[in-house]
Amino acid sequence: MTDAAELTARLIRCPSVTPEEGGALDLLGGLLGRAGFQVHRVDRNGTPNLFARWGDKGARSFGFNGHTDVVPPGDPAAWTHPPFSGHVESGVIWGRGATDMKSGVAAFAAAAIDFVTNTPPDGAIILAITGDEEGPAQDGTRALLDWMAERDERMDVCIVGEPSNPDFMGEMMKIGRRGSVTFRIKAAGLQGHAAYPHRARNPLHALTRFLEGLIAAPLDEGTEHFDPSGLQITSIDCGNPASNVIPATATAIVNIRFNDLHDGASLTGELERRAGAITAETGVAIEIVPHVSGDAFLTKPGDFVDLVRDVVEQETGHQPELSTSGGTSDARFVKDHCPVVEFGLVGHYMHQVDERVPVAQVQQLQAIYHKILERFFA
Amino acid sequence: MTDAAELTARLIRCPSVTPEEGGALDLLGGLLGRAGFQVHRVDRNGTPNLFARWGDKGARSFGFNGHTDVVPPGDPAAWTHPPFSGHVESGVIWGRGATDMKSGVAAFAAAAIDFVTNTPPDGAIILAITGDEEGPAQDGTRALLDWMAERDERMDVCIVGEPSNPDFMGEMMKIGRRGSVTFRIKAAGLQGHAAYPHRARNPLHALTRFLEGLIAAPLDEGTEHFDPSGLQITSIDCGNPASNVIPATATAIVNIRFNDLHDGASLTGELERRAGAITAETGVAIEIVPHVSGDAFLTKPGDFVDLVRDVVEQETGHQPELSTSGGTSDARFVKDHCPVVEFGLVGHYMHQVDERVPVAQVQQLQAIYHKILERFFA
Repeated sequence: MTDAAELTARLIRCPSVTPEEGGALDLLGGLLGRAGFQVHRVDRNGTPNLFARWGDKGARSFGFNGHTDVVPPGDPAAWTHPPFSGHVESGVIWGRGATDMKSGVAAFAAAAIDFVTNTPPDGAIILAITGDEEGPAQDGTRALLDWMAERDERMDVCIVGEPSNPDFMGEMMKIGRRGSVTFRIKAAGLQGHAAYPHRARNPLHALTRFLEGLIAAPLDEGTEHFDPSGLQITSIDCGNPASNVIPATATAIVNIRFNDLHDGASLTGELERRAGAITAETGVAIEIVPHVSGDAFLTKPGDFVDLVRDVVEQETGHQPELSTSGGTSDARFVKDHCPVVEFGLVGHYMHQVDERVPVAQVQQLQAIYHKILERFFA
Repeated sequence: MTDAAELTARLIRCPSVTPEEGGALDLLGGLLGRAGFQVHRVDRNGTPNLFARWGDKGARSFGFNGHTDVVPPGDPAAWTHPPFSGHVESGVIWGRGATDMKSGVAAFAAAAIDFVTNTPPDGAIILAITGDEEGPAQDGTRALLDWMAERDERMDVCIVGEPSNPDFMGEMMKIGRRGSVTFRIKAAGLQGHAAYPHRARNPLHALTRFLEGLIAAPLDEGTEHFDPSGLQITSIDCGNPASNVIPATATAIVNIRFNDLHDGASLTGELERRAGAITAETGVAIEIVPHVSGDAFLTKPGDFVDLVRDVVEQETGHQPELSTSGGTSDARFVKDHCPVVEFGLVGHYMHQVDERVPVAQVQQLQAIYHKILERFFA
């Protein structure tokens, strides 16, 4: 039997801070190849990625997605054990990536290897592992999915192994994510003396009124599977050094995390409508430039979601909440390919100093993934 | 008779960009001394100032206040005639300071010299002329008034000779000014991820709400002699480069030009009260730091105001509006010393390229000042 905890420690010892591969994908490729997987490095623009398939192309297939890159450890001296030591002590594995998410990758790789070795299924198992999820993510999972599409490689369903449980195993699985759009808002008025405002048009007054309108009322009350959409002003800047001068222009940045009632285009339209009303009232032109990071998506509860939920409940004793909370993950790309859910470890210590994970938790996750494969191919 | 227009041209030829004296005060001191004035240079911290008194200290006295310093000319090549040429052509005097306000100083100096020469009054005439009104103004008219207070030198009334007419002579005199206070407002929240706002406290949301409250309704409707108070946001800054991060702090600058319903302390109290309410609602601390440039003041209509108004009407055919509009002037300092009004030239071309003034207008102002002295000492 393959030990996911030991594999986690070995992966931690690969210094794979984005965009460095650090030997992590080579280690996985070797293990998977020896277990009968067809392994391909799918690097794009210098970003390392690994594709592995057991079974025939075109067969009914189960996919796993994850990443081996990690965020920087910061000052190594701040760590109890060196961040790339993979130190194991008293049933705990220490190091950068222990929860996010070398453990998740180790758990599904170990589960897949054991499953195909012991009970070869009538179908295929695909592992799509990227070395760039923490970075720009333009040539990571996206590149893997593009490469697969070109070759008619496909997954019928996919689990992303990101940490999904806030506090305990079995607490939560993710069946979608809110979308994210960032607006750069530029207000252009007319410069003038603060004592003679009738000869000027103050862009900060127009911008304040516009922004207050955005934060005055919630965008919605949430939907069946989604929290309410949230809006945050992340910057307002003007750079006017003179307190007796009304500035000519001012800029704001607004980020919206939105649910399935909206998309990037509908929100852009709404902000443009409101900006037009402020411009009509104030004479200050307001320009809205959107950047959509990802639209909201939902894997509707059904056979696949039920399968994962049932196995998690059986193995942990907890029926996981079907959540769409949190930031973005590579599931935003996978959802265009096939139904996708996220289930992994408890997310404590992610991106923190002294990131660490209990051995037992990694082994439990391995068991859950193994059971999911059994049920899927039963 | 002393020609105020010729004296204006001679003063323009003194390059007295703040804080340079440029020979302007020396020129005036010489003329006044020869006419029987006691002349003192009252420099403080390198700032040049001139005090001149005709008549006995302690006698009933009429004062004039003005400045010989000028703002920089910018690119001399942009001028039709060099900015310090004092070029006179077709009845127009050209150069920096032609309207603001070497002409005003020349007009009251010429009027005072002719008046004491031809009809020596039973009283005193005081000229308090500074070389720093356009700059920081800490050691200009303030220094003159401090020096006078130390020596029991006093004016019973004072005219500040700043340009007071928007478009034609006789249109407007100023009997007060709105006050000015600038607030630096700092909102301190809690940094966090834009996707998890419940773990952060967004200072920009608190600041936007606070500022919208300030601009949502006028501070007042104005009073008998004052326009409504005006509030302008002149800067909002945050400097947060990451659109997915809620910043920790943000800063705004707000300038208020206020009438006699308010003073710096009352406005500070009002803003602090509103900030406290926002803090209670949001958990974001809002710090308010005021800088009061000057409180509002009013020289109530009465004998002195009537005297000036009547002479202006008689000489120009227009009854001047009694105004408190516009920015600050050194009248904000003089008002603590004695009743003060402002009457001078038409303010066109102030601080602009090709600043210039008609000879006839300077001579008319000289005649008005002369008539005011006659009436005061009659």
